[in-house]
Amino acid sequence: MFDAIDHLGIAVAELDPALATYGGTFGMALVHREVIAEQGVEVALLEAGDPGQTGPGGHVELLAPLSADTTVARFLADRGPGLHHVAYRVADIDAALADLAQRDVELIDSTPRAGVRSSRIAFIHPRATGGVLTEIVEAAP
Amino acid sequence: MFDAIDHLGIAVAELDPALATYGGTFGMALVHREVIAEQGVEVALLEAGDPGQTGPGGHVELLAPLSADTTVARFLADRGPGLHHVAYRVADIDAALADLAQRDVELIDSTPRAGVRSSRIAFIHPRATGGVLTEIVEAAP
Repeated sequence: MFDAIDHLGIAVAELDPALATYGGTFGMALVHREVIAEQGVEVALLEAGDPGQTGPGGHVELLAPLSADTTVARFLADRGPGLHHVAYRVADIDAALADLAQRDVELIDSTPRAGVRSSRIAFIHPRATGGVLTEIVEAAP
Repeated sequence: MFDAIDHLGIAVAELDPALATYGGTFGMALVHREVIAEQGVEVALLEAGDPGQTGPGGHVELLAPLSADTTVARFLADRGPGLHHVAYRVADIDAALADLAQRDVELIDSTPRAGVRSSRIAFIHPRATGGVLTEIVEAAP
């Protein structure tokens, strides 16, 4: 059903110290940075693998809240910084959502919404995945 | 420094219902199952991507505690089921640990220990990674 682990979402209080760790210390290449105002979050996307790796190595997506009344800020207040969600890559998100719905998987989004870098995304409810907030993502064409 | 996201560790109370979801509903292929008595855990490793995918799609590692006095049981009691750790693949774990130590990254394991499928693994402390329990893994030759 899924093609690969697309990215791992990590909630952090502030983006710059986290970028110093993941981009600086670990040497992951920053490929994208974007404020998503409607979700109250700024995200930075880094290549988990060294540049030039063959095949998809996956990405790390750092998420920092824009204000205290956002879902990521509440996550940080409840649980502290750390693993927030996983996203799996799919070729066709409409087909994947139809397949999941047919299997009675509880969805947060029954239709796709806009993600970073013009991707289309949808979330599966943690109740359906053993407590894991799970995203599926179809890359922009 | 890292080659790719190797796997994502998910803590669950019981392995079989989680396998029904990840293996059954999501169709991930089960590639390995192992009791690691010294870590008090049974693990099941599944391919995140469909079989036949090109390139490394990453794995999901389900972790279930063998008894109540284990670290995974305490994690479940504190936080409930869900994302537990991320592991990045490295070609040479001794070189990676030396590199991390030289960069003053706080390690849980300064020397490698045995992981599943005869791999060699080491953990980086969550204090050094924005709250994420982080493993590095060198596959068996």
